[in-house]
Amino acid sequence: MTRWAEGFIAVDWGTTNRRAYLIEKGGQSSDEFEDGKGILSVRPGEFEGAIAEIREKLGERPMLLAGMVGSNRGWVEAPYVPCPAAIEDLVSGLVWVEPDRTAIVPGVSYVGDGRADVMRGEELQVLGALAADLISPNGVICHPGTHNKWIQLFAGKIHNFVTVMTGELFSLLKGHSILADLLQAPVEPNEAFEKGVRQALERAMLPAQLFGVRASVLLGQTEERDAASFASGLLIGTDVRIGMSFPFAARVVVIGRPELTRLYAAAVGLTGREVIELDGEQCFFAGAKRIVELIDERN
Amino acid sequence: MTRWAEGFIAVDWGTTNRRAYLIEKGGQSSDEFEDGKGILSVRPGEFEGAIAEIREKLGERPMLLAGMVGSNRGWVEAPYVPCPAAIEDLVSGLVWVEPDRTAIVPGVSYVGDGRADVMRGEELQVLGALAADLISPNGVICHPGTHNKWIQLFAGKIHNFVTVMTGELFSLLKGHSILADLLQAPVEPNEAFEKGVRQALERAMLPAQLFGVRASVLLGQTEERDAASFASGLLIGTDVRIGMSFPFAARVVVIGRPELTRLYAAAVGLTGREVIELDGEQCFFAGAKRIVELIDERN
Repeated sequence: MTRWAEGFIAVDWGTTNRRAYLIEKGGQSSDEFEDGKGILSVRPGEFEGAIAEIREKLGERPMLLAGMVGSNRGWVEAPYVPCPAAIEDLVSGLVWVEPDRTAIVPGVSYVGDGRADVMRGEELQVLGALAADLISPNGVICHPGTHNKWIQLFAGKIHNFVTVMTGELFSLLKGHSILADLLQAPVEPNEAFEKGVRQALERAMLPAQLFGVRASVLLGQTEERDAASFASGLLIGTDVRIGMSFPFAARVVVIGRPELTRLYAAAVGLTGREVIELDGEQCFFAGAKRIVELIDERN
Repeated sequence: MTRWAEGFIAVDWGTTNRRAYLIEKGGQSSDEFEDGKGILSVRPGEFEGAIAEIREKLGERPMLLAGMVGSNRGWVEAPYVPCPAAIEDLVSGLVWVEPDRTAIVPGVSYVGDGRADVMRGEELQVLGALAADLISPNGVICHPGTHNKWIQLFAGKIHNFVTVMTGELFSLLKGHSILADLLQAPVEPNEAFEKGVRQALERAMLPAQLFGVRASVLLGQTEERDAASFASGLLIGTDVRIGMSFPFAARVVVIGRPELTRLYAAAVGLTGREVIELDGEQCFFAGAKRIVELIDERN
């Protein structure tokens, strides 16, 4: 049997990008690359070649794949593990594309309260942070991205979660809407951003508040240069208001890419809660390390 | 002086379309045409020609222009009339491009409660419906479109209003989002639509509920053929919830194109209120007729 923990490749394979890491014994990455070969740019039948290319670059190691590569638009579908989900459940749900050599991590699903929700990729980071003792087994995690996730951990398992399509909405508005010309400036957690967050926390009327961005620039109530940060504040403030509907810890952990976590940390901070930011990449390494340890234990 | 009420041309000139009507004495339309020459397809310097073209088709009559043609992206900017605004205020704010021959109707603006809002075009229909005694001088009007307006009338004036960008959001999601393939079916006020409306009235979490449409199809909780109507119900239900924040009449009047008013009427009906639908075109004629009567009175 392969000893995975002696060295393996972990791939975070999303819709538009993939990041591949060579993980050495101990869990640190010694080599890596990132490219634009997200699942949407790999045609059916081409995944074998895309996998071979990763091994050419990083070596002939066993490989763990996470993210949208396991979705119904990816390589091989890895069925969702239902909540409550611990990291052991992810290991039981691994889909083995090549025995003892190439495995896909399943996503997690939630059905309840008349809602349904799915995630793929965030589960590995959140349960990885837990395995590395970076977070508590009970609490609320925020994972910003194209689709932000609010995740409730209970007894070390993903107990419930809700997805808010904040990043995608901002991108649609910036790319194609009547607000497009106002949203091109970089977003900063400045006063305009905080004003947007506060308004969204106070009143739940996002699709009206967004139109108001344009109206308030037209009527001289908002400076044009503030519009992008203000609109982002409205969207992220709405997102935080939705996250607050979970039974909440006094402390919120925000996991992800630092340029996004700092905006969410600023918004959550305005609610008076303590906020901790964690780098999503480090949590990904921790999750991959724990999964291969469990693979080795079961072998 | 021209007697406008003897016969004139009224143009509803929007962003992507224009509709021109020859209005006879008495206020009925005897000839009309519609084309794709919205303001975005007419370049600066070409508006004179676009006006001449209308008179070639409908005759050498005085002409009243309403809608986005008076915006800062249109022909000549007609500054907004602030709330509270009566139809007499629109006449005082007319911008005369050619003396006693061609006039642009101003829009209406609102600034207050930390909000700012603008409308162009809807004011003529709403105040027209009032002039024709189709609605009461106190009450709430809903005017669906790309940007839905909730308008509070008080003592025969537009007292306050809020714009909700529901139509544009649906179009962005249908055209460019992760939900696009689920939203191509026609929207009907069916059970799936009503389910969406009810969920949106109960819980203010639209950007999460929208992602949930995809998740619930993936997890077999919603039929794919119901997704478009369900998503539309979520958006329109959110819109109605926002409209409810106005001091409300027991009766809501919905003015606009029949294919849209029926959806909003269905959604408002689920809140237990009486709903009346009015055809926006008839209200436009009534508003234009009243404005030219006032022009003639002042001449």
